[in-house]
Amino acid sequence: AFLAAAEELHYADLAFFYANLEDDEDRNFITQTLSPVTFSDILADLPDSLREEAILRYQPAQQRELLNALSDDDRVDILQDVSEEVRASLLDLLSSDQEELTRTLLKYEEDTAGGRMTTSIARITVDLSVKQALEKLKVLQDSAETLSRIFIVDERERPIGFIRLRDLAFASWGTPVRDIMFDVKETILATADQEEAANMVRKYDLLALPVVDESHRLLGAITYDDAMEILEEESTEDFEKQAGIAGEQSEESYLRTRIVVHLKRRVGWLLVLGFLAIASGYVMIQFEPVLNSVFLLALFLPMVVAAGGNTGGQASTMVIRAMSLGELEAKDSWLVAWKELRLGMLQGLILGGALALTCLLLLPVFLPNSVKGVALPQFTMAVSCALTIQVSASTLIGAMLPIGARTIKLDPAVIAAPAITTIVDVTGMLIYFTTARLFLGL
Amino acid sequence: AFLAAAEELHYADLAFFYANLEDDEDRNFITQTLSPVTFSDILADLPDSLREEAILRYQPAQQRELLNALSDDDRVDILQDVSEEVRASLLDLLSSDQEELTRTLLKYEEDTAGGRMTTSIARITVDLSVKQALEKLKVLQDSAETLSRIFIVDERERPIGFIRLRDLAFASWGTPVRDIMFDVKETILATADQEEAANMVRKYDLLALPVVDESHRLLGAITYDDAMEILEEESTEDFEKQAGIAGEQSEESYLRTRIVVHLKRRVGWLLVLGFLAIASGYVMIQFEPVLNSVFLLALFLPMVVAAGGNTGGQASTMVIRAMSLGELEAKDSWLVAWKELRLGMLQGLILGGALALTCLLLLPVFLPNSVKGVALPQFTMAVSCALTIQVSASTLIGAMLPIGARTIKLDPAVIAAPAITTIVDVTGMLIYFTTARLFLGL
Ligand SMILES: [Mg+2]
Ligand SMILES: [Mg+2]
Ligand SMILES: [Mg+2]
Ligand SMILES: [Mg+2]
Ligand SMILES: [Mg+2]
Ligand SMILES: [Mg+2]
Ligand SMILES: [Mg+2]
Ligand SMILES: [Mg+2]
Ligand SMILES: [Mg+2]
Ligand SMILES: [Mg+2]
Ligand SMILES: [Mg+2]
Ligand SMILES: [Mg+2]
Ligand SMILES: [Mg+2]
Repeated sequence: AFLAAAEELHYADLAFFYANLEDDEDRNFITQTLSPVTFSDILADLPDSLREEAILRYQPAQQRELLNALSDDDRVDILQDVSEEVRASLLDLLSSDQEELTRTLLKYEEDTAGGRMTTSIARITVDLSVKQALEKLKVLQDSAETLSRIFIVDERERPIGFIRLRDLAFASWGTPVRDIMFDVKETILATADQEEAANMVRKYDLLALPVVDESHRLLGAITYDDAMEILEEESTEDFEKQAGIAGEQSEESYLRTRIVVHLKRRVGWLLVLGFLAIASGYVMIQFEPVLNSVFLLALFLPMVVAAGGNTGGQASTMVIRAMSLGELEAKDSWLVAWKELRLGMLQGLILGGALALTCLLLLPVFLPNSVKGVALPQFTMAVSCALTIQVSASTLIGAMLPIGARTIKLDPAVIAAPAITTIVDVTGMLIYFTTARLFLGL
Repeated sequence: AFLAAAEELHYADLAFFYANLEDDEDRNFITQTLSPVTFSDILADLPDSLREEAILRYQPAQQRELLNALSDDDRVDILQDVSEEVRASLLDLLSSDQEELTRTLLKYEEDTAGGRMTTSIARITVDLSVKQALEKLKVLQDSAETLSRIFIVDERERPIGFIRLRDLAFASWGTPVRDIMFDVKETILATADQEEAANMVRKYDLLALPVVDESHRLLGAITYDDAMEILEEESTEDFEKQAGIAGEQSEESYLRTRIVVHLKRRVGWLLVLGFLAIASGYVMIQFEPVLNSVFLLALFLPMVVAAGGNTGGQASTMVIRAMSLGELEAKDSWLVAWKELRLGMLQGLILGGALALTCLLLLPVFLPNSVKGVALPQFTMAVSCALTIQVSASTLIGAMLPIGARTIKLDPAVIAAPAITTIVDVTGMLIYFTTARLFLGL
């Protein structure tokens, strides 16, 4: 009954189901019911941390079947997730050809194009006719991940064209493939970042992006499904970094990730940012006399400080996202600065104007006692100028920090929104009290 | 020379090039050099706002060619972006069949599965043999967007299976397709949200997801390339919302989007959040006596307040992302609350402990004058308890707000990080001064 139900389900759902089983017995039941070949798809979709114990539920002979059924990119990924001893024993199960290929692929970093590519691609040489190509593909069909893109290489193994199976299936047999192939316009180096590869797949609507070595020889391809997974991982990474969540994202779901793992990733930045915030408090203490003589200043202090964090966060988000999508280059820095400076000043004037009106019209009505003894026009000037300056400065800071980070080869997203908030908190305090001191003559 | 160069370039690059031309003459040169058919791919990749003026550079006869060359999802998308008069004149250029189809597709909301599907899919009936299927596909091949997934429908037009061209090309001609087809496990309703469709494509590694109507009849498909575009749009949307950037994302690049557009999207939340922050200031004013009697409290006020914003932002980011990826359901609310409550308390204790040590060990050394006259043990208890409570409460608030938003059918991402910051700013002030009053007996 389970087997029948399992056949109706997609491997992605089965992997989710398996990962959510609490009971060891239940997991054993699944691995014993499903053949190694069926389970191979499920294994490839399991969170990294569950893979070793899953594979060890099978006997060596079954493990061999399972490994053979995996496409090579998934096989490599799985071998990277298990302990060294298990990796060695699994590599021993492979045929010597496969073992060599797998060892070669294991050499690429996990987050490069080479580390994510599949070598099971359909590849034919340019000198074939349609008939010869079809014969070749008939042999290849079971080993290639996709025949939707068939790569055509020249005598030095360089990808010069591709063709779709439909172009062959409906062409006359004598036609040379050279005459009906499409040019390969996009390739990527095996050592390039996976994010760059995935962005190319998305931008150019590719089914498979050819991966090449330094001599431009065809090594494999990044397929659309892996590109989608990479884009999702990279987006999640950016979300987390911008919220000040550190470290590797968990491959397990939010709920299944243990509290201690969540804690480790979050508490670091919390501590750093928390103690940096003491600088703001220190500035405030220095201005005790100013605050004491016009305590009404406290009313708009949080507003001015927070407005900097908000606008800085907006600016940095826009810039970081534009960078992730490959829209901004280093040479655009000045354009970004000029744009955000003008934007910041406009926003500052709007907010400052609104605050000035509030002070002049509403304060005397709602807080008549607090306003007594305060020079309202000067007070209004002070707080609205402070807000305008703070918003202008923070917008610029928020936009330039990610650009600066990239210049020194850091991920722009590590300039997390809370880090910007912390910085503009301090500048905000300084701007606010300095402006107040000037306008109120304190 | 330009024509030769253009042929070497991918349409995505040409679209980028065209969009970045400042000069009307230059754009005219491109549209006059490239055939309408070549330009159709470029048009589909242009930002929405440039499409109308681009299409109007061609004569009606050429416009017809261009429209015919577009796949139907792109044609509909473009018609949605132009003015009503242009839309009417373009619809007139279509053959009556095509016009009817286009009008039907225009009825679906832009961000639904129906609004993003292509109807140019390969579709055969289940009663055919391999030979008959191949003959059918030979006719279809130019109109179908992809033959990599050929959908098989029953007599009531319901998708019951799919097949790859390779399965047909290498099978014997007499085999009934019914015997070699794969089951269709995933379909989506035309009225479903585009994000749900794209997430299914990603999760199930699909090349094309069949779109059906209420009677489960096959209408079209969402292809992998459109799914990637949807996922990118939805991620960008979530990034922007979390930073308090409102409204529709601009289809133009960051740099090309005009300042007034940026301004409109950002200044709204800035104003709202800015004025909400006056609530924090109001709380502060109410506690003037407390602050005045122990001004040293100001030193850790920003720290306690900011720690709430940081931890609340982390918690909400984790929860919003888990929701976007379809990991969390409504019934999980209590699990999330329980997890974040424990996490919040742990984080609160760690931060509170660190702050207590700092107070006791470092304060007397670095700020001996400020500490004079302050009961250090009570002061330490007050500020570190306040920090612990603030972090615990804010973590919980940050996690629960997005869940609450979804319960009342709002997008969880609209509970923007700055909105959370603003809320926990107020609660932080209250917690801080109340705790101080209690412990210091003020
Ligand atoms: Mg891995
Ligand atoms: Mg890998
Ligand atoms: Mg695209
Ligand atoms: Mg793969
Ligand atoms: Mg990245
Ligand atoms: Mg990365
Ligand atoms: Mg549309
Ligand atoms: Mg549109
Ligand atoms: Mg997948
Ligand atoms: Mg499409
Ligand atoms: Mg497209
Ligand atoms: Mg969304
Ligand atoms: Mg949406």
